[in-house]
Amino acid sequence: MFTLDIQPRFSDTDALGHISNTSLPVWFEQGRTPIFRIFHPSLDVKTWPLIIARLEIDLLAQSYWHMPVEIRTGVGNIGNSSFQVVQEAWQNGKQIARGVATLIHFDYENEKSVSIPEAIKAELAEHKVKDTA
Amino acid sequence: MFTLDIQPRFSDTDALGHISNTSLPVWFEQGRTPIFRIFHPSLDVKTWPLIIARLEIDLLAQSYWHMPVEIRTGVGNIGNSSFQVVQEAWQNGKQIARGVATLIHFDYENEKSVSIPEAIKAELAEHKVKDTA
Amino acid sequence: MFTLDIQPRFSDTDALGHISNTSLPVWFEQGRTPIFRIFHPSLDVKTWPLIIARLEIDLLAQSYWHMPVEIRTGVGNIGNSSFQVVQEAWQNGKQIARGVATLIHFDYENEKSVSIPEAIKAELAEHKVKDTA
Amino acid sequence: MFTLDIQPRFSDTDALGHISNTSLPVWFEQGRTPIFRIFHPSLDVKTWPLIIARLEIDLLAQSYWHMPVEIRTGVGNIGNSSFQVVQEAWQNGKQIARGVATLIHFDYENEKSVSIPEAIKAELAEHKVKDTA
Repeated sequence: MFTLDIQPRFSDTDALGHISNTSLPVWFEQGRTPIFRIFHPSLDVKTWPLIIARLEIDLLAQSYWHMPVEIRTGVGNIGNSSFQVVQEAWQNGKQIARGVATLIHFDYENEKSVSIPEAIKAELAEHKVKDTA
Repeated sequence: MFTLDIQPRFSDTDALGHISNTSLPVWFEQGRTPIFRIFHPSLDVKTWPLIIARLEIDLLAQSYWHMPVEIRTGVGNIGNSSFQVVQEAWQNGKQIARGVATLIHFDYENEKSVSIPEAIKAELAEHKVKDTA
Repeated sequence: MFTLDIQPRFSDTDALGHISNTSLPVWFEQGRTPIFRIFHPSLDVKTWPLIIARLEIDLLAQSYWHMPVEIRTGVGNIGNSSFQVVQEAWQNGKQIARGVATLIHFDYENEKSVSIPEAIKAELAEHKVKDTA
Repeated sequence: MFTLDIQPRFSDTDALGHISNTSLPVWFEQGRTPIFRIFHPSLDVKTWPLIIARLEIDLLAQSYWHMPVEIRTGVGNIGNSSFQVVQEAWQNGKQIARGVATLIHFDYENEKSVSIPEAIKAELAEHKVKDTA
């Protein structure tokens, strides 16, 4: 799995004193950067080739501002033009969230999905998380 | 269903030129305010009685900054201490997203879930969305 | 002055229980929409003609999530290619912030400032706030 | 000066393709963490002793998502109960922003400012930026 250390920002918290649930999608998006690079090494936003179709997040424990969070990122099911990214967030030795994002290989100009090239499928498969066969 | 008009903010967009996927959880959270009021009419954050356990969002179409978005909010399954909120986002006559949030009636002091009182269950049931019986 | 009603979002708060200072720049940006329209009626982001050079915000009182905020927006000094936007934020009858943003009429393709056309200067001048002569 | 490496998040960008001006206050707030620690080593939000009174940011160059940003943080003028934090943001060898935040030593319970203890003033003075006498 790819790992990314996130430093929670003060504005990631909300008035309940903990990290806002709305920060997890932001952190998980950031954790997907190595996946983005597989499709698009330049990361140039003008020619971005992916769109997100679905996100699911289970919030497993409260999390807090002043401790780092580790985001772990792997690949789930791989379809013809879409695939899943499977993620976990850990803080202070405890899993605080898990997430699944469904991404589509996408042509923004024609607004339609595009098959994932075989070479990319093979590279994605190297990062497959075992338990989502 | 409850409805809320959201004015997308410029900072809700991202470098792809459209609304960021990370803004939908923010908008849906805001759309849940009438649900929060059923549990907690004062909305006082110091005695807040709910925590979110899960969010699922399907992103159905790209959305944009300069047009309002309508958030529609109803209730799904109601359990002993948890229940679902079922939501839709519409922009310019088109559904752009649907979401399901699982909320838990929660005691922050003791960090544990609490049964939902019958009176509140009855009030939630009045806002039940038909097709999630 | 132009006025805009902002509904604070739960994620605009932070762990101190009040609205984050980082939400004010977001709200003020949203309040500048009528100014953006003077330069760019379509609001199309692909041909956006303004860039921000400076922002100053005085935070005058704590503000909270569950009450609307009114943003009042006028024009300050008007230069050759830049001008100031002068703003206030009010909640529950109390001024919570004031802000001044310096915007530049900007050509993103050539990355340089552009003179503000006389017709636009005249329109901006109609919204001038008296005490910033 | 204290330095902090910020990894811009995808949601820090906006539809103009660059980093939103509204992200700079968030990054600068995060860069103030070592200053917060001088006043409040535990960083416990329930007993937080500071409030922000003013922020000024000059945006000097466009910045982008896929490169890290370094935030440099020092201390400016130190008054009886308030002081200034002077900051810079650098990306790819170029200064993209400078900022000044005015913070007040604050008693949230009684909602009033409090003198800064001499020991803290002395510690702040060690981090003073030369050119803001």
